[in-house]
Amino acid sequence: MFNGAILVGASERRGGDPFFAVHPASGGQGEVAFSNASPADVADACALAEAAFESFSALTPDARATFLETAAEQILAIGDLLIETAMTESGLPRPRLEGERGRTVGQLRLFASYVRQGDWLDATIDKALPERQPLPRSDLRRVNQALGPVAVFGASNFPLAFSTAGGDTASAFAAGCPVVVKGHPAHPGTGELVARAIQAAVKACGLHEGVFSYLPGSTHELGGALVSDPRIKAVGFTGSRGGGIALMQVAAKRAEPIPVYAEMSSINPVVLLPGALAARADALGAAFVGSLTMGSGQFCTNPGLVIALEGPDLDRFVAAAAQAMTASEPQVMLTPGIHEAYEKGVAALLSAEGVTTVARGAQAQGANRGQHALFTTDAERFRSNPALAHEVFGSSSILLSCRSIDEVLETIAGLEGQLTATLHMEESDSADAARLLPALSRKAGRILTNGWPTGVEVTYAMVHSGPFPATSDGRTSSVGTLAMERFLRPVCYQDVPDALLPPALQDANPWKLIRRVEGRLEAAAGQDRAL
Amino acid sequence: MFNGAILVGASERRGGDPFFAVHPASGGQGEVAFSNASPADVADACALAEAAFESFSALTPDARATFLETAAEQILAIGDLLIETAMTESGLPRPRLEGERGRTVGQLRLFASYVRQGDWLDATIDKALPERQPLPRSDLRRVNQALGPVAVFGASNFPLAFSTAGGDTASAFAAGCPVVVKGHPAHPGTGELVARAIQAAVKACGLHEGVFSYLPGSTHELGGALVSDPRIKAVGFTGSRGGGIALMQVAAKRAEPIPVYAEMSSINPVVLLPGALAARADALGAAFVGSLTMGSGQFCTNPGLVIALEGPDLDRFVAAAAQAMTASEPQVMLTPGIHEAYEKGVAALLSAEGVTTVARGAQAQGANRGQHALFTTDAERFRSNPALAHEVFGSSSILLSCRSIDEVLETIAGLEGQLTATLHMEESDSADAARLLPALSRKAGRILTNGWPTGVEVTYAMVHSGPFPATSDGRTSSVGTLAMERFLRPVCYQDVPDALLPPALQDANPWKLIRRVEGRLEAAAGQDRAL
Repeated sequence: MFNGAILVGASERRGGDPFFAVHPASGGQGEVAFSNASPADVADACALAEAAFESFSALTPDARATFLETAAEQILAIGDLLIETAMTESGLPRPRLEGERGRTVGQLRLFASYVRQGDWLDATIDKALPERQPLPRSDLRRVNQALGPVAVFGASNFPLAFSTAGGDTASAFAAGCPVVVKGHPAHPGTGELVARAIQAAVKACGLHEGVFSYLPGSTHELGGALVSDPRIKAVGFTGSRGGGIALMQVAAKRAEPIPVYAEMSSINPVVLLPGALAARADALGAAFVGSLTMGSGQFCTNPGLVIALEGPDLDRFVAAAAQAMTASEPQVMLTPGIHEAYEKGVAALLSAEGVTTVARGAQAQGANRGQHALFTTDAERFRSNPALAHEVFGSSSILLSCRSIDEVLETIAGLEGQLTATLHMEESDSADAARLLPALSRKAGRILTNGWPTGVEVTYAMVHSGPFPATSDGRTSSVGTLAMERFLRPVCYQDVPDALLPPALQDANPWKLIRRVEGRLEAAAGQDRAL
Repeated sequence: MFNGAILVGASERRGGDPFFAVHPASGGQGEVAFSNASPADVADACALAEAAFESFSALTPDARATFLETAAEQILAIGDLLIETAMTESGLPRPRLEGERGRTVGQLRLFASYVRQGDWLDATIDKALPERQPLPRSDLRRVNQALGPVAVFGASNFPLAFSTAGGDTASAFAAGCPVVVKGHPAHPGTGELVARAIQAAVKACGLHEGVFSYLPGSTHELGGALVSDPRIKAVGFTGSRGGGIALMQVAAKRAEPIPVYAEMSSINPVVLLPGALAARADALGAAFVGSLTMGSGQFCTNPGLVIALEGPDLDRFVAAAAQAMTASEPQVMLTPGIHEAYEKGVAALLSAEGVTTVARGAQAQGANRGQHALFTTDAERFRSNPALAHEVFGSSSILLSCRSIDEVLETIAGLEGQLTATLHMEESDSADAARLLPALSRKAGRILTNGWPTGVEVTYAMVHSGPFPATSDGRTSSVGTLAMERFLRPVCYQDVPDALLPPALQDANPWKLIRRVEGRLEAAAGQDRAL
């Protein structure tokens, strides 16, 4: 159960000035009074996190992996209460939330397996060259170490997979960093349930209580205090562009600036090449609207921009998309604030000069339902009005018709950074695709062909990031095993006695790691990991 | 030869408002009028760099490696003129500069070899799972790609190895990024000679001229304009804390913020443990002063802080250090500005409350000679006065005597981020060392035992970075192969047809890479790279 408490390490406490969960489907609110964590709570949580750092970051891979697996089990052990609470607080349907729970648990387990395997340590050894002239070379050994306590700001649109025990928390734990979560006020009961599961895992594994704290709150001050705390060494955030930039600025102004990994804003361009349109314009139109309206469009990778060459095949696509959209039912959005921002964004497009409405979804009945919207404008106007390229979070998209592939290229070159970019193509489009791919790869962290960007697999190869403003740091990923690297830094040991080295670097290679020795990857002696 | 030109791509041009090289040993100045690059030159260089990006970043590893090797050959081909020019402009002695040239060339060749080997691409493949339930999984493939054009600000203290063709330029080229160098005004002839060598290598390899430009200048405006240019996607800098922070702020305020890799400020603590002092206090004292005064202390890793337990062994160390320092001759510093800053820093310590002068070097004769200085204070005063922990660039160091290992730990915990931290120890000190190492590893990028931090090897395992303010980004390194990662970002390709994939990800593995497939490293078929 949940009671609205602040969880600082192993203990719980109450704060003043409570807030309440809003139930978006009904517009009503919950009965539990949730505490707003105060600056004193932030300081206590960060002090505990700092106290936990040395022991937690020094755990063996197996011990840390076991903790991640225990957290996964504890989350499953909450049972249906978690799904019901999340449904009530987010308005998302049961199958989606059950899937999201599976993803959350699977993510923790994937990190557990990757932590055990150990490649993330990047253990690297350059042996001493005592005979080298004119000077001998020292023994140099490098390994990745945890950065320090991490602050995590969960997302409203994935109350499980990108929130309290989501990708940021899982990857920070995997790297060996204690985590202080700023609980999202849009799903406070869900957040607390998951936080208590992590708290139970910390206890079950006999870890320092400071490994995890949970600070619910509905104020910007709370987030600012957390990012400003000198013990916090990195920040994970998924949310709005404004929110992400505000945290980046707080972090940059600290006496010790720290990295902020903010996933913020993307319109995920989809390019329809002529061969694809000729072959399947109708199917593409329907599938596009399916991707656009799924989950009320509340995905970071929602296709908010479609680019294609003008002509009858595009007209067919538009007709099919319009038909699908007209039939599409409005769905509950996550929060009144998100619904309001969506309506505002759509209203701005409705009144923007030179922007035409292609179709709207069925009219909304009931609270917080977003009526879907598809617009069109010409590519030149789009390029000259940056406001048209701003993300409207929800099921709103703009279609651009271009006169040539050159104009498509010019349009892509003018885009800001994106999470994804998609090409729909046939074999006959290969030459055009080959021209577009280098441009797209500069703009986005993930390039798809013949798919839709919604749906982000949690794997080794996944990249969920992109140049600003898609994220604050396009050199990494917030989904998949790569996400761990955000919370690691390399440390080199020079001539340090073997017994004092981190185990990953000791001669005996007790963790049986693949290590880079004199520049070549080598398996541990006796290990059957043939390359 | 050099003539003071601005090198934009393959062409050269003159600017107004010239500046002249200062010869620090004599205090005189050179005859060549060096152009100050203008904002228009910045814009032209950046436009060319952007135009060169697509072809340069798409080169095969072998082609890019050949370019790096050609640049090395062209630098050697300058001959003794390079050494003589650098001696005149920097005041550094011939053997040091010959060594530095070797290091510069060796660095380019190491990157060439690492580029060919290909592990830096981090090619990762998760194959499609068409039968997966409830939904099939797409084919996902990830590879590292170049970030974009890079701006490099060379260091004054390594006119070859950390300047025009230094570690930042070499690693950016290795990653596939065109480079625009802001030439350091302290060694303009040296910089131009090296720049022309790179320009010749670009031509010899048939590359786009925009791969490299060189903008000499003595103004802050030039640097600001370069970092502000929207085509620049990352910055490499080695220099002062103030300079680095200024560039970080410019980069953070851009419409698209970009990473700045600034290596700025470090006092490189050296801890002398009791066993080491008992065994060899005299030798340590002399060796410490050798490291401190080498090259007039103008190294980023100069030991500016010594921490030890009070007692007669420490007294012996102090006596030996004082004796060595008193006998030490002042050397020419790199620039009048650096000499002036050194004198100011020493003067502040001379007048600081509770700080005692242990010894000074021999008095300075001639221009720009820094008189070496060793101070002492108690650890409590040091902890309470942050000014005492600021770097004084040059041969100035502070010795702290502590009452206990606990006090040593407390002192370390209070330090800012460092490039290095050193322990001198004997076997009998192992327990103390084990207590200190975790604390030191949080503060520094490199931990040494029984050595001196000056001297940075260019290898696979080297880390030359550290938490702020040692660098702006402690998650990477500016020396060694790891430096390449600063200029790369991952891109994921989802269901992209094989022929359109980057070669590193194609099924046939044409570059014979080790790749991570389903989470396990695998050699290319037929490759003899057993793990």
